[in-house]
Amino acid sequence: MKLLRVGPAGAERPALLDGDGVVRDLSGLVPDVDGTLLADRAALERIREAARDGGLPAVDPAGLRVGPPLTGIGKIVGIGLNYHDHAAETGAQAPAEPIVFMKATDTVVGPEDTVLVPRGSVKTDWEVELAVVIGRTARSLGTDEEALAAVAGYAVANDVSERAFQIERGGQWDKGKSCETFCPLGPWLVTADEVSDPQALALRLWVNGALRQDGSTADQIFPVAHVVRYVSQFMVLRPGDVILTGTPAGVAMGQPEPKPYLRAGDVVELEVEGLGRQRQVLADA
Amino acid sequence: MKLLRVGPAGAERPALLDGDGVVRDLSGLVPDVDGTLLADRAALERIREAARDGGLPAVDPAGLRVGPPLTGIGKIVGIGLNYHDHAAETGAQAPAEPIVFMKATDTVVGPEDTVLVPRGSVKTDWEVELAVVIGRTARSLGTDEEALAAVAGYAVANDVSERAFQIERGGQWDKGKSCETFCPLGPWLVTADEVSDPQALALRLWVNGALRQDGSTADQIFPVAHVVRYVSQFMVLRPGDVILTGTPAGVAMGQPEPKPYLRAGDVVELEVEGLGRQRQVLADA
Repeated sequence: MKLLRVGPAGAERPALLDGDGVVRDLSGLVPDVDGTLLADRAALERIREAARDGGLPAVDPAGLRVGPPLTGIGKIVGIGLNYHDHAAETGAQAPAEPIVFMKATDTVVGPEDTVLVPRGSVKTDWEVELAVVIGRTARSLGTDEEALAAVAGYAVANDVSERAFQIERGGQWDKGKSCETFCPLGPWLVTADEVSDPQALALRLWVNGALRQDGSTADQIFPVAHVVRYVSQFMVLRPGDVILTGTPAGVAMGQPEPKPYLRAGDVVELEVEGLGRQRQVLADA
Repeated sequence: MKLLRVGPAGAERPALLDGDGVVRDLSGLVPDVDGTLLADRAALERIREAARDGGLPAVDPAGLRVGPPLTGIGKIVGIGLNYHDHAAETGAQAPAEPIVFMKATDTVVGPEDTVLVPRGSVKTDWEVELAVVIGRTARSLGTDEEALAAVAGYAVANDVSERAFQIERGGQWDKGKSCETFCPLGPWLVTADEVSDPQALALRLWVNGALRQDGSTADQIFPVAHVVRYVSQFMVLRPGDVILTGTPAGVAMGQPEPKPYLRAGDVVELEVEGLGRQRQVLADA
């Protein structure tokens, strides 16, 4: 299933994208798309049945805003340098174990919402990523199978990053990862049953129409199952938590000087195979 | 005012500690202690008036559990190496600007709840800290006065940290900061009007009765106002967000070998002047 949330920011309602590309209203069936829903197999089954039976009202697509595909996100865990080609372009060695950072949950916006260049920023960068959404509480997972069983679904994310804040301002990355609007998410939360192999998804990102990132999750140093299992050794993963699994080569930081960092008016488009497409226009904060 | 939350974990109700040390039930007056309440001056004034008028029912203290003093925390921002003596004991130079990391919000527990030594941990450490609770949405604050005006109140925190996870496992600190139960908070949220000078508070921590940390916020490299203003340059601060402002010298990591890291059965007690006292017994996860 492709779950989404539509409507004005802060007042989205739950919806489903059906097989014909029609947005169907779920608000008569479930209160929202959040960790509670993702942990509730019976509720997910009710949505499946209603979709099959054709009983869900269509939503008028005219002027429809798409919000983030889930709400009530408890934490966003980021994985750094998780693609061989991206580690190489930053001049770093492939890490011996996953690099874990965190991103504030209030950075999440819809896939076509405006992204703000922070005040004083000259190094705002893009990162197309496969986002993993957790569906079960997970502690110290022992196997890759358990790890994949804890995944409710997948989504496209842009892990927007301010490189000066991240790297040049004192030690820890979080400062460059949590600026306002720095986590466009969606359009859809695609349930895990529709993603046959999370390690075979193409990821692409364009800036002002020029292809900048063109990778595959096959190039991940630590695959999704490993990452979920690994993170669960250090913190509890709960339904509605999100893990951003890293970005392939092609970010602005990896380009020759003058590096093409983002400015107001730039347009970023990105997609992950099977998970939909995002488009953001940059503006000054 | 000293706001708190009492009752079983996950089912706490809002309360007030009055001037006579009696816990008063606030659940007839406000739904909970959270960002919404802290941003609502009228609601806070209603609590003040009700306390003055003596109309709040007393809560039976027998067997009463104290929970974290606020719920719905949006983010926890940590400040690293923010005391001169602690920076020195870790062998680090005083940082040129605040070091910012993040701690998952689901690590928060009550001030007397059990703290878990993570599986595989041999370097679980303590950190008594002054926690700042935000009461107003703040972006790019320009002055220290604006920063202090954004503070709703203060609380005691134990920023429990696993040093091997934090430092020896690949680059970023967050991995050693977000283990389950790693943020005892409370007992009270003391409103800012009751803390005349946040830079003149004694902090102390004992392990199994032995005094380990004995510092003062006067020794902070970056005072509270600076920290709040600084963090607001990088991320939006919202009502109910928490900033942990760093720890003074005396953590296990700073001791001679064999360093006295925490084990199951150890008892940690800590206090910040005017903000109350915590006591945790360690157990294995």
